[in-house]
Amino acid sequence: MALVFHSPLDDPEPWRRALASELPDLDVWVWPHVPDPAAIAFALVYRPPPALLASLKHVRAVVSLAAGVDHIPFAALPSGVPVCRMVEPGLAAQMADYVLHAALTAQRGFDHYARCATVGQWDWAPAGAPSAFHVGLLGLGAIGRAVAARLAAAGFSISGWSRLGRTIAGVVVEGGADGLDRLLARSDMVVLLLPATAETAGLVDARFLQRTKRGAHFVNVGRGEHVVDADLLRALDDGQLASATLDVFRVEPLPADHPFWRHPRVRVTPHVAATPVPETGAVAVRAVVDAVRNGLPLPHRVDLERGY
Amino acid sequence: MALVFHSPLDDPEPWRRALASELPDLDVWVWPHVPDPAAIAFALVYRPPPALLASLKHVRAVVSLAAGVDHIPFAALPSGVPVCRMVEPGLAAQMADYVLHAALTAQRGFDHYARCATVGQWDWAPAGAPSAFHVGLLGLGAIGRAVAARLAAAGFSISGWSRLGRTIAGVVVEGGADGLDRLLARSDMVVLLLPATAETAGLVDARFLQRTKRGAHFVNVGRGEHVVDADLLRALDDGQLASATLDVFRVEPLPADHPFWRHPRVRVTPHVAATPVPETGAVAVRAVVDAVRNGLPLPHRVDLERGY
Repeated sequence: MALVFHSPLDDPEPWRRALASELPDLDVWVWPHVPDPAAIAFALVYRPPPALLASLKHVRAVVSLAAGVDHIPFAALPSGVPVCRMVEPGLAAQMADYVLHAALTAQRGFDHYARCATVGQWDWAPAGAPSAFHVGLLGLGAIGRAVAARLAAAGFSISGWSRLGRTIAGVVVEGGADGLDRLLARSDMVVLLLPATAETAGLVDARFLQRTKRGAHFVNVGRGEHVVDADLLRALDDGQLASATLDVFRVEPLPADHPFWRHPRVRVTPHVAATPVPETGAVAVRAVVDAVRNGLPLPHRVDLERGY
Repeated sequence: MALVFHSPLDDPEPWRRALASELPDLDVWVWPHVPDPAAIAFALVYRPPPALLASLKHVRAVVSLAAGVDHIPFAALPSGVPVCRMVEPGLAAQMADYVLHAALTAQRGFDHYARCATVGQWDWAPAGAPSAFHVGLLGLGAIGRAVAARLAAAGFSISGWSRLGRTIAGVVVEGGADGLDRLLARSDMVVLLLPATAETAGLVDARFLQRTKRGAHFVNVGRGEHVVDADLLRALDDGQLASATLDVFRVEPLPADHPFWRHPRVRVTPHVAATPVPETGAVAVRAVVDAVRNGLPLPHRVDLERGY
């Protein structure tokens, strides 16, 4: 019984070691070095190529090597094969660190000071308390909850928006269109942590951006498809938004001539907010393998209906 | 009985309110509006002017409106008047946030990504775990300990250097010149949290900088006098240091033509890392007032011998 591993980004060696430690009875093959395609029972993949997908005749579960699954062409998989999202604490902790850094940058005015530095301007303007800075989180799945916990521990005021009506102690959770309006109206920073689905595509458009607090900060660590790029640029240029911190884009790598790169109020990072960590990620893979072997419901299985 | 307040930077109104709440039996006078200089028993001051100091004939304690006391001309005070440092949790929390932001900036490569953005370069290079990033803290007073706790909670590996041999659970604490060498050799980021004294003046010179790990990051939130500016610039230019995050300077405001402002590897902030918070700071002032009234040892009293 074997697991096939493929990623155009991740180094396979740490994964091979971590999987060998968690699942010693499973062969781990790094695509395309697959001695026997018929023995592949599991796949751990990011952006799997068509030939890999075609070889998965007897696969029992596919695990995404990312929190999202929009990089997997579901139609190319044998019918009924379950796909599981990568939900593991190492990835969630990285996301929490990324968003905390963005929140501190905005709340403490570090971007402002960087602009002052270019002209040698000493502008003494200490910040208020984090509790006076309101962060609105769109998406309260496993990652959103980890982000909420980290920001709350740092003293920020948090509210969240959840389609599924999730609740978190100490966090005001909104739902529906009205709830989104309320969240946007009070948030000094809006953070997108949503998955890519038909519902979230183009969510951040001119209408959405008109409803934010004037001068709010925007962070997208979900997917680039959430954002209408031209509308976001317009909101930055007319002062509706103070800044945008963007880790994900409609086209990745972001083309070198895209206006996001050099916009003075946009911070671009190359999709590094959160990546799976081999040591903790292998534990999540083992949970899927164990569930398959024991005929139990698979953890974080994608619901094709809702799209994630 | 009255307290005189003076600061060229802080808004007196929130302080007046907070002090009135903590010490309702004390008059709070904002310099120079002092109805009766002889009634001044306490002073809460930042950079007090000579006329204010001259009026302190019957003062029983002076509280610094800053963690440091180098802004107070001790020789101008009546002999034997105790001076207390401002040690309060609101200020320490701000310092912890500032240093955590600097640590995340370095560990996650946000400065690197900012440089990539100027040329539209997508350089995917996720960071390792915070535990693999070693932060060395010079100075483990009340503020240093708050910083250590915050960084440790965020998963960073911490060591500290303390002249007084302080120990903290979970932190390797070094002492002496050998200990400083060991700390510098293993730290990916070195943070100066020391007070301004004869011993710390010019501590960060060419010799100090040669002993850091090559490519380390440097943060100064202590005092500008710790650093030999020309030596720091040389260490940045020859690659010995990857970056410097500087909040304090030998001359403040930092002159507009100082090379720190526009150096590509220097981040300048205008002495905003940590400022006293009225609500929590007034509690610290009350502790001093209560100690004076009860004839008890004063909290955080400056030892003129050691200089802080």
